[in-house]
Amino acid sequence: MAGTYGVIMAGGSGTRFWPLSRAARPKQLLPLGGGDEALLVATARRLTKILPEDHILIVTSEALAEQTRAALPNVPAENVLTEPVGRNTAPCVGWAASVVARKDPEAVLAILPADHHIEDETTFAEVLERSVQAARLGEMVTVGIKPTRPETGYGYVELGEEITPAVFRARRFVEKPDELRARQFLAAGRFLWNSGMFFFRADVLLAAVKTHLPGLSDALTRYDEAALRGQEQALVKSTYQTLPNISIDHGVMEKAARVAVIPGDFGWSDVGSWTSAWELAPRDTNDNAFFGEVVPVDAHRCYVRAPEGKVVAVVGLDDVVVVDTPDALLVMPRSRAQDVRSVVDALKKSALKKHL
Amino acid sequence: MAGTYGVIMAGGSGTRFWPLSRAARPKQLLPLGGGDEALLVATARRLTKILPEDHILIVTSEALAEQTRAALPNVPAENVLTEPVGRNTAPCVGWAASVVARKDPEAVLAILPADHHIEDETTFAEVLERSVQAARLGEMVTVGIKPTRPETGYGYVELGEEITPAVFRARRFVEKPDELRARQFLAAGRFLWNSGMFFFRADVLLAAVKTHLPGLSDALTRYDEAALRGQEQALVKSTYQTLPNISIDHGVMEKAARVAVIPGDFGWSDVGSWTSAWELAPRDTNDNAFFGEVVPVDAHRCYVRAPEGKVVAVVGLDDVVVVDTPDALLVMPRSRAQDVRSVVDALKKSALKKHL
Repeated sequence: MAGTYGVIMAGGSGTRFWPLSRAARPKQLLPLGGGDEALLVATARRLTKILPEDHILIVTSEALAEQTRAALPNVPAENVLTEPVGRNTAPCVGWAASVVARKDPEAVLAILPADHHIEDETTFAEVLERSVQAARLGEMVTVGIKPTRPETGYGYVELGEEITPAVFRARRFVEKPDELRARQFLAAGRFLWNSGMFFFRADVLLAAVKTHLPGLSDALTRYDEAALRGQEQALVKSTYQTLPNISIDHGVMEKAARVAVIPGDFGWSDVGSWTSAWELAPRDTNDNAFFGEVVPVDAHRCYVRAPEGKVVAVVGLDDVVVVDTPDALLVMPRSRAQDVRSVVDALKKSALKKHL
Repeated sequence: MAGTYGVIMAGGSGTRFWPLSRAARPKQLLPLGGGDEALLVATARRLTKILPEDHILIVTSEALAEQTRAALPNVPAENVLTEPVGRNTAPCVGWAASVVARKDPEAVLAILPADHHIEDETTFAEVLERSVQAARLGEMVTVGIKPTRPETGYGYVELGEEITPAVFRARRFVEKPDELRARQFLAAGRFLWNSGMFFFRADVLLAAVKTHLPGLSDALTRYDEAALRGQEQALVKSTYQTLPNISIDHGVMEKAARVAVIPGDFGWSDVGSWTSAWELAPRDTNDNAFFGEVVPVDAHRCYVRAPEGKVVAVVGLDDVVVVDTPDALLVMPRSRAQDVRSVVDALKKSALKKHL
């Protein structure tokens, strides 16, 4: 029987968790899920409940390859695919599918972002199993998350008829809605957040890419040929930036015929900002999440990170994020987490680029 | 004619400006008046408008002697008197008066705290001149500041009759009042803040000490005798902690007969907290006072200090103080400046004493 492979998408530019995350140390390499484990390591560990470590592929940037291999020493080094430039998820997924298909064309791929947090890992493993099973039968599966708020930052997927128990046809994908629509989706009950986790057979995905993104398909065929001559990495390096800059959702899933949705309810978070880091972190009786030596005086619902060897005192503060690192410090109300991007933009335009 | 000497009281424990000030670097050695000049250096500079640098004496702790001499290289090293322990201001002033009196008994002493900020230095120099003049005639002079708010943290002095133009008899001293009384003082108009700046002849002061603090007077006589044998510092070291721990205000001025008040209106601040540091600092159009590399996004009325080589980003913050140093960081609303003491107390009780 064909095998099952995990593909972890581990690019990331490290802007939303500045200053702890940086261009050279994006969030998947940081322990933002509450404990000590980097998000990437947790993602790989969860996959090992359904497949062996040498069946895990990781797609990352050249700059992060070394740190990524070091974070997962039991994943074979050659399983870490390095993109010379980021081109969204369609090229990333297509390339990984090609690599797997060379030895196992009907293998099922579990495509997972590197930076999600999962609260209930037992339920998650069951959803993984069910998703792999549906994918093996030829479905292209996306995992949908029951929305808990009218989130405007995610894409949604609408449930169609139930094709087998707890597996639904996807009626349609909807891009990030405005708030009114998001509220309607929440009320309607049949719209789920598109989690960005996908499952399909390698041959099924590659056929869909051939239909919907023929340029990408042609490039992948040339990568296959180059791989036979041991020249794949050189060709990737010289041509990757010409691949279509499009997501697998937009480029393939939304257009494909047999797309299934499997609802998942396992305490999912995409750890999108310092706000979610606070939500996921262990907290004291004043609802503060403190890391390192923190001296609080009348502080509540704060998230504070002190670097090694330093003490951080917070006095009379509520709902404030303080993230200190040796060369950069961020202070803001927790509600302003989305504005970290403004800081990163300001740094880019200034003489302070070294702090990115 | 007898000379004029300045005596700068430069002890200080460095708690209210933690973490920038430390036990080993108290506020008078920091540039908290807005510019680059340490408060102590500014105090000495203002004195040089009425007396030569070699007529400046500084009383400080042994631990701070080296830094104090380095900050004022033109003040003769022997003019820096070092106390083995702090015993409030009466012993400090009495000792300095004794040292001056040995060569010039009728010299006028201008006693100034090291850590005041003066906005209008021209007017201040005029007040210095007038105060010295009154002291030379035998008055014990205190400079009173017209109150601008019902401050409960200062002592007050009540004006009596005007004895010569702009020189008043002191009717009485009042210790730190409660808020109701402070409001009454402010409304009454004849109560001034006791600035802690005093002027008197050395012989007049020593006579008053003999009357009101005979124990201190006896000790000072023994210091004089030891000085003749070159053994003063050794005797100070072994006996200073036995001197009365009392302020010159309480111990002498409040009890003395001929006490005059000279009102001063020269933009005075005792730079008592991070709040006053913000008030004194140059500010941008959003009323922020920034030192070092600060990246503001929607920040107003903040006081932010970034250490060398570091960037500090403040997002969506109003009226917040952020003081960062290599090994300690403080974040608090500006209104909570008095609570810095709580942090210092917490550090004292913890394993984090090295950050004091």
